[in-house]
Amino acid sequence: MNFEYSDKVKEYMERLEQFMRDYVYPNERLYEEQLDSQSSRWEAVPPVMEELKKKAKEEGLWNLFLPHSENGAGLTNLEYAPLCEIMGRSLIGPEVFNCNAPDTGNMEVLDRYGTDEQKERWLRPLLDGEIRSCFSMTEPDVASSDATNIEALIERDGDSYLINGTKWWSSGAGDPRCKVAIFMGKTDKEAPKYEQQSMILVPLDTEGVTIERMLPVYGYDHAPHGHAEIQFSNVRVPKENLIWDEGKGFAIAQGRLGPGRIHHCMRLIGAAERALEDLCKRVQSREAFGKKIADQGVVQEWIADSRIEIEQARLLTLKAAYMMDTVGNKVAKKEIAMIKVVAPSLALRVLDRAIQAHGGAGVSDDFTLAAQWANARTLRLADGPDEVHRRQIARLEMANHKEG
Amino acid sequence: MNFEYSDKVKEYMERLEQFMRDYVYPNERLYEEQLDSQSSRWEAVPPVMEELKKKAKEEGLWNLFLPHSENGAGLTNLEYAPLCEIMGRSLIGPEVFNCNAPDTGNMEVLDRYGTDEQKERWLRPLLDGEIRSCFSMTEPDVASSDATNIEALIERDGDSYLINGTKWWSSGAGDPRCKVAIFMGKTDKEAPKYEQQSMILVPLDTEGVTIERMLPVYGYDHAPHGHAEIQFSNVRVPKENLIWDEGKGFAIAQGRLGPGRIHHCMRLIGAAERALEDLCKRVQSREAFGKKIADQGVVQEWIADSRIEIEQARLLTLKAAYMMDTVGNKVAKKEIAMIKVVAPSLALRVLDRAIQAHGGAGVSDDFTLAAQWANARTLRLADGPDEVHRRQIARLEMANHKEG
Amino acid sequence: MNFEYSDKVKEYMERLEQFMRDYVYPNERLYEEQLDSQSSRWEAVPPVMEELKKKAKEEGLWNLFLPHSENGAGLTNLEYAPLCEIMGRSLIGPEVFNCNAPDTGNMEVLDRYGTDEQKERWLRPLLDGEIRSCFSMTEPDVASSDATNIEALIERDGDSYLINGTKWWSSGAGDPRCKVAIFMGKTDKEAPKYEQQSMILVPLDTEGVTIERMLPVYGYDHAPHGHAEIQFSNVRVPKENLIWDEGKGFAIAQGRLGPGRIHHCMRLIGAAERALEDLCKRVQSREAFGKKIADQGVVQEWIADSRIEIEQARLLTLKAAYMMDTVGNKVAKKEIAMIKVVAPSLALRVLDRAIQAHGGAGVSDDFTLAAQWANARTLRLADGPDEVHRRQIARLEMANHKEG
Amino acid sequence: MNFEYSDKVKEYMERLEQFMRDYVYPNERLYEEQLDSQSSRWEAVPPVMEELKKKAKEEGLWNLFLPHSENGAGLTNLEYAPLCEIMGRSLIGPEVFNCNAPDTGNMEVLDRYGTDEQKERWLRPLLDGEIRSCFSMTEPDVASSDATNIEALIERDGDSYLINGTKWWSSGAGDPRCKVAIFMGKTDKEAPKYEQQSMILVPLDTEGVTIERMLPVYGYDHAPHGHAEIQFSNVRVPKENLIWDEGKGFAIAQGRLGPGRIHHCMRLIGAAERALEDLCKRVQSREAFGKKIADQGVVQEWIADSRIEIEQARLLTLKAAYMMDTVGNKVAKKEIAMIKVVAPSLALRVLDRAIQAHGGAGVSDDFTLAAQWANARTLRLADGPDEVHRRQIARLEMANHKEG
Repeated sequence: MNFEYSDKVKEYMERLEQFMRDYVYPNERLYEEQLDSQSSRWEAVPPVMEELKKKAKEEGLWNLFLPHSENGAGLTNLEYAPLCEIMGRSLIGPEVFNCNAPDTGNMEVLDRYGTDEQKERWLRPLLDGEIRSCFSMTEPDVASSDATNIEALIERDGDSYLINGTKWWSSGAGDPRCKVAIFMGKTDKEAPKYEQQSMILVPLDTEGVTIERMLPVYGYDHAPHGHAEIQFSNVRVPKENLIWDEGKGFAIAQGRLGPGRIHHCMRLIGAAERALEDLCKRVQSREAFGKKIADQGVVQEWIADSRIEIEQARLLTLKAAYMMDTVGNKVAKKEIAMIKVVAPSLALRVLDRAIQAHGGAGVSDDFTLAAQWANARTLRLADGPDEVHRRQIARLEMANHKEG
Repeated sequence: MNFEYSDKVKEYMERLEQFMRDYVYPNERLYEEQLDSQSSRWEAVPPVMEELKKKAKEEGLWNLFLPHSENGAGLTNLEYAPLCEIMGRSLIGPEVFNCNAPDTGNMEVLDRYGTDEQKERWLRPLLDGEIRSCFSMTEPDVASSDATNIEALIERDGDSYLINGTKWWSSGAGDPRCKVAIFMGKTDKEAPKYEQQSMILVPLDTEGVTIERMLPVYGYDHAPHGHAEIQFSNVRVPKENLIWDEGKGFAIAQGRLGPGRIHHCMRLIGAAERALEDLCKRVQSREAFGKKIADQGVVQEWIADSRIEIEQARLLTLKAAYMMDTVGNKVAKKEIAMIKVVAPSLALRVLDRAIQAHGGAGVSDDFTLAAQWANARTLRLADGPDEVHRRQIARLEMANHKEG
Repeated sequence: MNFEYSDKVKEYMERLEQFMRDYVYPNERLYEEQLDSQSSRWEAVPPVMEELKKKAKEEGLWNLFLPHSENGAGLTNLEYAPLCEIMGRSLIGPEVFNCNAPDTGNMEVLDRYGTDEQKERWLRPLLDGEIRSCFSMTEPDVASSDATNIEALIERDGDSYLINGTKWWSSGAGDPRCKVAIFMGKTDKEAPKYEQQSMILVPLDTEGVTIERMLPVYGYDHAPHGHAEIQFSNVRVPKENLIWDEGKGFAIAQGRLGPGRIHHCMRLIGAAERALEDLCKRVQSREAFGKKIADQGVVQEWIADSRIEIEQARLLTLKAAYMMDTVGNKVAKKEIAMIKVVAPSLALRVLDRAIQAHGGAGVSDDFTLAAQWANARTLRLADGPDEVHRRQIARLEMANHKEG
Repeated sequence: MNFEYSDKVKEYMERLEQFMRDYVYPNERLYEEQLDSQSSRWEAVPPVMEELKKKAKEEGLWNLFLPHSENGAGLTNLEYAPLCEIMGRSLIGPEVFNCNAPDTGNMEVLDRYGTDEQKERWLRPLLDGEIRSCFSMTEPDVASSDATNIEALIERDGDSYLINGTKWWSSGAGDPRCKVAIFMGKTDKEAPKYEQQSMILVPLDTEGVTIERMLPVYGYDHAPHGHAEIQFSNVRVPKENLIWDEGKGFAIAQGRLGPGRIHHCMRLIGAAERALEDLCKRVQSREAFGKKIADQGVVQEWIADSRIEIEQARLLTLKAAYMMDTVGNKVAKKEIAMIKVVAPSLALRVLDRAIQAHGGAGVSDDFTLAAQWANARTLRLADGPDEVHRRQIARLEMANHKEG
C-alpha cells in the first residue's frame, strides 16, 4: 500500500497545472465573451478554444484518457485520474485536452468495439479534435434511470436500420462541430431483458434527425455544446453503423460507464478543490463585525469539512481507478457505484459553501462557482441517479453478509 | 391557541387559489415566450403581465400587503401570510397582485416614513403598479452582511445631496418601468455606528446613475427585472428626497426587513408546497425497475420529510407574523431571524428532492423547479446570510439563560 | 389563528414550573442515591417518589392528562401539551404527577374501553398512583414495527382465555408496584388482518407469567421500572379480562397511540428545552483558547439551530393536539405521525449538542443529558420506527396529489 | 500508488480474524457474565480475559503496535492499522492482544521518553500485560479541550515532586491491575505557554491518591477498567519519576496522540464494519409489511451509505498512517486531525443505523451495538473535541491559500 503518485504522474500533473495557470484560467472569461459577442451563442465555438487545443496538442497534453489503447497516452486509469482532476478545475478545461464528456466515452466505445471502418470515419477525427459527438440514450417519456424502459427502436430493414425515437439530454449536440450520435434503442423487444438494446452510429445530418430544442440547466444554456432534445423519425443508416452486434447495447453501456464515471468524479473533485481555494482566499480578504471572515468558527468548519470530504472522495475514486486497472471494471462495480454517489454530492456541498462565503458574487458569474454547481447537480442524475447506485451497492453488500 | 385561519382569510385564499389556477399558472410559459420573442429579454415587460395585473386589480386581489395602512387591504401580517404563500407558488405570481419584492418593501418604507410629496410622487404610482422601484444597499467591494461596512456616501451640498458609490444586487433595476431607487449610504461617518447611514430616493434617470451590468443568478437573467450593478457618480438629488431624517438608515432598514422577511418566507413555503405537489404527481406517473417510483421507500422518505418540514416552517412563520402583529417587530426579532434561516433552506431541500425525482426535466425549464431553486438560493444570502441570523438568535437565547 | 396559551393553561404552567423548581429538580439526585443505596436497584421505589407524588396530588397537579373524561382534570390535549412538556424536563417528573408512560396510555384504554368492573379493579388504583401497569405488545422474534407480525395467542377456553407468547419491552414491569399488563395477541388467526388481535388484562401474579430478564437501554437499567422480557406460558385469566371485544386490538391500539404520542413528543420537547438551557449556561461559564466558549461561532450555531428546531417541533405538536381535539385522532393521523418522526430526532440532536458542549461531563451522569438521550433514542423505535411513520405520511400525502 | 495490503499484513489479518472468530466473539458474553457474577463488577478482571491474553501471546498476536521499537512487532503504523481495525470489532478485543488504550499510548511514551529505570519498572510489566496504567490529564473544573487550561501542579520539593490536582476521565484506573498513572500538570506557570506542563509517573498506591468515583458513560460503567475521578493531594514521588524533562508535557502529548488517534480511528472503523455486518444480516432475516426488511429502499440507503462512509474513512486513516511512517507525525498533523474528526462520527452513524434496524434489540445488550455506540461517542470528545480539530484543519488549509 502506497499513497504516492508515481514520478511519471507527478510530472504530468505539474505540466498540466502549469498549462491551466498559463492558458486555461486566464481565458475562461474570454471564452464567454466570444460566445456572447456572436449573434447567437450557438453559432460557433469560441476561437480561443481551438487555439488552446492546438497548444495542448503541441505540448503533448492530448488524449490522456484511453487506458490500454494505442490511441491514448498509455496511462492507466489510476494514472489518468489526478490529471483528469486538474482539467476539471475549469469548465472549459477538459475540451482543451480533448478529454471532455461525452466524447471520451464515445471514443472509448469506438476504440473498443468499433470496426476499422467506424474507427477511420469517426474515431480518428474525434481523437484529432476535429469533430464532436453526442450520446443519445435518455428519453423524455420514460424513467430512464431504468434503461430497460427505453422505447426507441432500431429496426433492421434490408441492408440498413430504421431508427425511431425521441431522445433528450444528448449533450454536445448543439455544437456546430458535432457530427455523429451514438444512439441506443431496441433491436429486439422479445429478447431477454438485457439483450434487447443495441447501439448504432447516426450521423446528425441524416434525414429524419431533428434537433427540437436545447435544454437549459438551471438557466445555463451550456452553449455551444448544449443539451439537445432530438427527434429521430424514420432515420435510415447503413447496417454497418451498428456497433459490435445486435443486443449488445447494455454490454457496451456498462463498458462505457466505468471509465466515464471515474472521469466525471475526478473532474468534480477538481472543481471542489478550486472552490475550496476560492473560499479560503475570499474569507481571508474580507471583514465583517470587526474580524476577518476567516476567523469565524462556522466558516472554519466549512473549510475543515470541505478538506475532509475532498480527501476522502479522492482516495475512494483513486481506489476505484486502481481496481479497474487491476481487477477490471466488473469486479470494481461496487467501488464505481460508490464514487458515482459520493463525488457529485461532495462537489455540490463544497461549491455551495464557497458560494455562501462569496455572497452575491457566488451566485453570479463573477466566479465559476455557480456554473460548476449547476454542472455538478446534473451528475446526481446523469448515468443513473444516486438512488439507483445506492440500491446496487446495498445489494452487493448484503450478498457478502447472508444470514448464517 | 387556535390553528384555524379566519373566515375572511379562508375566503381570500380560495379566491387567490382560483385566480392562480385560472390565470397565473396557465400563463407562466407565455410570459417566458413573450420575453424570448423580443429582440432583447430586457426590452419590455411581457404584455401578459399587465393583462394579469389588470384582472387581479379588478378582482380586488391587489396590494394585499401593507398592514396598518389605509393604502393596503386592511390585513394583518398573520392574515396576509397565507395569501403571500399562494402567490409565491409561481415566480410571476407576486407581481400580478402588486405584492412583489422589492416594491412591497419600498412601498412600506414610503408609506411609513415618506413625506406627503414623496408619497404622491412615488408611492401612488407604485401602489397602482405603474412604476417599479429598486433598493440599492449592497456593495460589491465589502462584506455587506455587516451593513456597517457600507461605503457609499450621501453628502449634503446646499439644497441637495451628492451621492457616490457602487451598488449591486439592485433587483428590479433592469425593468423598463423601474423609475426610482431607495439608496443607502453614509451621511455622517463620525456619528455613532448605527446612525451614520441614511436612505434617499434617487430617480434612475438622474445624471450620474449608470447601470453597469445585470448580474445572473445561476444562469438565470431574471429579465426583465434583473439584478443590477449600478454606478452612482456625483449624483445630485434635492434634499427633499431624503427619507425620514439623516442617520435613520438603519432604523428604516429594520422596519423594512421585518415584513419583508415574512413575505419572502411565505413565498418560499408556497414554492415548496408546489414542488411537493409536482413531486407527488411525478412519482405516481412513472415506473422503474418494475414498480411505480412512488412505491420506492427513498422517495416516500423525501415526501414525508418535505411535508414535515413545510408544516413546521409554515407554523413558525405564522407565529412570527402573529408576534409582529401583537408585540411588534422589535420583540419578534428572534422569531423573524429564525424564519429567515429556516424558510430558504426548507425550500431548497424540497425543491431539490422534487428536481431529483424529475430527473433531467427537473434541472431544465420544463418545470419551475430549477428556477425556484435558484431564487430560493439567493435568499440564504439576501437580507443577511444565515450565519448572521444564527448568531443573533444565539445571542438572544443565551441572554435568557445566564449562568446562575 | 392565535399562538397564545389560554390563561388557564398559563396558570397551570406557572404552578408546574414552580413545583419542578421547588421539588423535582432538587430531588433527582436523591432519587438515584436512594436507588443505589438499596441492596438491589429493583428492590423498591425510592421513598422520595412517593413523597413527591403526595405533594403533587395535594397541589392538584395530578392526572392532568385524560381529555374528555371525568377522571381527568378536564384539559384538552392542546391544554395538556405544554404541561406535559414541563414534566418531561425531568426523567422523574412525569411519575410525580401520575402522568408517566405507559400508565397514562393504559389508563386511557381502561377509561375509554374498560368495563365498570375493570375500571374499579385497575383504573381506580392507577389513577390514585397506588399501582403501576405495563403494556405487553412487542415480541423479540418478529419485526414488531408491523403489528400484524405479532404471534402471541389469546385463546378462548370455556370461561377463560389461555394466553401464550413471549413479549419484551414491557416497560415498567420491573416496578414492585406493577400489578397488571395489557397484553396484545391473536384471538382469531383467520379473521381479516386488522381484526385478528385483541387486548386483555393479565395480572402479573397469574401463574405462568415469568419475567425472564430486564433489558438495558444503552447501559441504563431504568430501575425500578425497567423494560422486561416476559414469558406468558399457558396463562389463564377470566374471560371478563378482555378489553372491549375480540378483534378490537388494533382499534384500541390506534386510540391509545394518538394521545400517547402527543405526550411522548411534548416530554421530549421539554427535555430538549432543558438541554438547551444547560448548554447555554455551560458555554457561558467556561473559556478555551482565550475566549468564552459562548463566543465560538460553531457553538452559537448549535444554540440557534436548537432554538429553531425546538420552536418548530413544539408548534407542530401543538397543532396535532389541536386537531385531535377538534377533528379527532383519525383525521389528525398525519399530524400525529409527523410529530412522532420529528420530536425524538429533535431531542436527540439538541441533547447531543449539549453533551458535546459539556465534554466528559455530558456523557456521564453529572447532568441528565446522557440519560435523556438514551431515553429519547428509544422513541425513534417505540410505537413504530420512524420509517413506518414516514411511509404513512407519504401515502397520505400522495393521495392528495393524484396525477391529473 | 497502490491500494493492496502487503502479504505480511494479509497474513497477520487472517490470523487475527481467525482468532477473533475462534476466541474473542464467542467469549464476549462470558466476559460480561463473569463480571456480573462478582459481588462487585469492580472486584476483579474476568478470568476469561487472562486466558485469552495467554492464548494471543502464544500465537504471537501480542504488542503489535509500537512501530520503530524493538519492543514491538516491527510493524509500521500503516501495517498495524488494519490489524487494529480487526481488534476493534470487539470491545474486549484490544486488551486480548495487549493493544488497548490507554496502555498503548502510555507504553509508547515510556518506550520513547522513559529512562531505563522507568522502562524496567513500568514498561516491561505493561508489555507483558501484567499491570495496567492510566493517563491523568483532563480536569473537571476547566475546559480541557484547551490543554493550557490545566491547573494541576507538579512542584519540585527537594529530591521529589509534590503533586496536587483533581483529574477525571482517568480511564482504566478502576482496574485492580492498574498500578500507575501518567500525570500531567504544571511545573512552571511562568514559562512560555507550551512549556509550562510536564508529565510524571505516579504509582496509584502513593499516599494522597484517592479515587473519588467512577464515571459512567451513558449508563455503562465500563468495569472493571472504568473512568475515574482521582484526587491527588500532596502526592509525593521521587524526582526520577519525571518523564523526559520539565516543560516537556506538551511535546510528549503530541508524540503520544498521533499514533493513539490512528489506533482509535481504526478500532472505530472495525466497530462500524461489524455493525454493518450485523445490519445486513438482521434485515435479511426479518419481514414487515409483506416483504423482507432488506428490500426496503430506506434500509438499502443505510447500507449503501454505511459502506461508502466506511471505505472513505478507512482510506483516509490508512493514508494518515502512511504519512506518519513516511513524513512523520508533525507533517501528518492535518491528516491526523482529519481522521480524528471523521472516524468517531462515521462509527456513530453506522452504529445508529444498525441499532435502528435492530429495533429494541439494538438499544439493549443483545448486540454490542449500543455499547460500541456509547464508546464511540466519547471519542468525539476524548483527545480534543471535533471543534478543536476542525479549527486546526481550517487554519492549516487557509495557510495554503493566502490571498494573492
